[in-house]
Amino acid sequence: MILPPKTLAYRTRLIEAIRDNHTAGASELARQALDGIQAYASELCGLSSDGTPPVEEMSAALLQMARDLQQQRPSMAPIQNLVQQWIVQFSRATPSSPKAVEVSARQISRQLSEQSLQALSQIASYALKLIGEGATIMTHSSSSSVFRCFELLSHKKVKAIVTESRPGREGHRLARALADLGISSHYITDAQMGLFIGQANLVLVGADTLLADGSLVNKSGTYLLALAARDHNIPFYTCCERLKYSPLLPESVELESKSATEIAPPVSPLITPHNIYFDVTPAELISGYITESGVSTTLPAPGAAGN
Amino acid sequence: MILPPKTLAYRTRLIEAIRDNHTAGASELARQALDGIQAYASELCGLSSDGTPPVEEMSAALLQMARDLQQQRPSMAPIQNLVQQWIVQFSRATPSSPKAVEVSARQISRQLSEQSLQALSQIASYALKLIGEGATIMTHSSSSSVFRCFELLSHKKVKAIVTESRPGREGHRLARALADLGISSHYITDAQMGLFIGQANLVLVGADTLLADGSLVNKSGTYLLALAARDHNIPFYTCCERLKYSPLLPESVELESKSATEIAPPVSPLITPHNIYFDVTPAELISGYITESGVSTTLPAPGAAGN
Repeated sequence: MILPPKTLAYRTRLIEAIRDNHTAGASELARQALDGIQAYASELCGLSSDGTPPVEEMSAALLQMARDLQQQRPSMAPIQNLVQQWIVQFSRATPSSPKAVEVSARQISRQLSEQSLQALSQIASYALKLIGEGATIMTHSSSSSVFRCFELLSHKKVKAIVTESRPGREGHRLARALADLGISSHYITDAQMGLFIGQANLVLVGADTLLADGSLVNKSGTYLLALAARDHNIPFYTCCERLKYSPLLPESVELESKSATEIAPPVSPLITPHNIYFDVTPAELISGYITESGVSTTLPAPGAAGN
Repeated sequence: MILPPKTLAYRTRLIEAIRDNHTAGASELARQALDGIQAYASELCGLSSDGTPPVEEMSAALLQMARDLQQQRPSMAPIQNLVQQWIVQFSRATPSSPKAVEVSARQISRQLSEQSLQALSQIASYALKLIGEGATIMTHSSSSSVFRCFELLSHKKVKAIVTESRPGREGHRLARALADLGISSHYITDAQMGLFIGQANLVLVGADTLLADGSLVNKSGTYLLALAARDHNIPFYTCCERLKYSPLLPESVELESKSATEIAPPVSPLITPHNIYFDVTPAELISGYITESGVSTTLPAPGAAGN
């Protein structure tokens, strides 16, 4: 069956929305990927009665889209993992009509998204136990897990140190969102991390991916913050759903780059600008991993990796 | 004697040019401060014959301006030190006419500037011995000493890794200037330092001030680069004329801030933005100090501090 161009264009837009979003955290984008699959299922189902694809073709189209989504963000394990869970569960379903395909796709997506959000709340509840009244928390980039922690902490009169997180400037939005929660923050450029780390009681960052050796793939600059934290004896924690585990090691993980025009570099044949969005923080710099199982000084067993 | 408003306004402009220049290195600005004293001496001397101040008043006005210049940049010892040398030498002179005052002010300024430039060349010649053919040199911000090294190194096919050095973006200009020398560079945001340090053979930075315990005051982010260098076993050198010595310790040095509007922060009563231009790198992270006396693993005796 050949799908109409409008439908194919819609699919492309859904996939590009995941590919080109360089400000949302990995776990948030993973949930958006599931939303995209749901939306595409509705689109396919809503084609006029003679144009609606048969059940098998509709299922195959959704599975293909899911696999395409998995390829979009190599530095973000949650997208691969959460969509993989969707693929496994959807492949087991036996819908008998296009409408039943749509319902199945939606139910699985919603359930997985809810589980992921529950994991965030569990992580935040464990993080809470680490953080005392009036503590100053330093963070880099913007993570939905870390933000959930701040939501639960707003009554504890915590303060934040927020880095700009150039070039995406996720810190700009985070500081505003914290202010909306009534949490005050110091807002600094990335280069000032070393000047402010000494004022923090702890560092709390999210995770785009956790590698098999316990190292952390996260927004560029995270490694520098971890070095500064170690040099000042400030504990460094990452909030990481088990969904973020990857079987890869640092030498084989792909760190995504975005167009260098975003950093407005000088232009010359002799100047090569770089805009790599992620760096790798080795396990030895990480004081603790906060997962839905609790706080651990070593990476909890990958066997439990959200499957 | 009351000086005309035009003359006083000129003096204010000369001082503000030093106060408000947040892109030039400390040693370059120190030489510009001497140029400012010269220019003011000419201005005073050039007043109409009946308006030219007597020798004593002209000398006093120049000394007062020199002392005012010394106060402008608390994080930059070279300005205090070089201008102090000017004050000492000028105070010894005994000019008999306004013209002789001007000549004396100019000669002392020129001689001190030349000595400072000679120091840069000496430093660069010592740095050269550390750097092999085809080496990759990583730097942060833009230092006239480091640039002089690159000038002498251009035949050695060296490469550079240049950080943006936000918010002043000195790296933007440096990468262009290196390209003009035929030196190719990788241009990165400050947050990417940790991703690129492993590609460098050494780090070479300038110095705004060297404190009594050997720690280095330099553009914010220098400390993070030094931490990354240590973590990768990459040697970290600072090029520092002895003129940059300060008798202060880290706890008493003033680190200059510039207006936070420069970093375009989010605006909220709960958000406090910071734009501190300098940080302190402790001596333990510094592999070597390159001064006009050679390369030393510890800070050469402050007794030799360019006086």
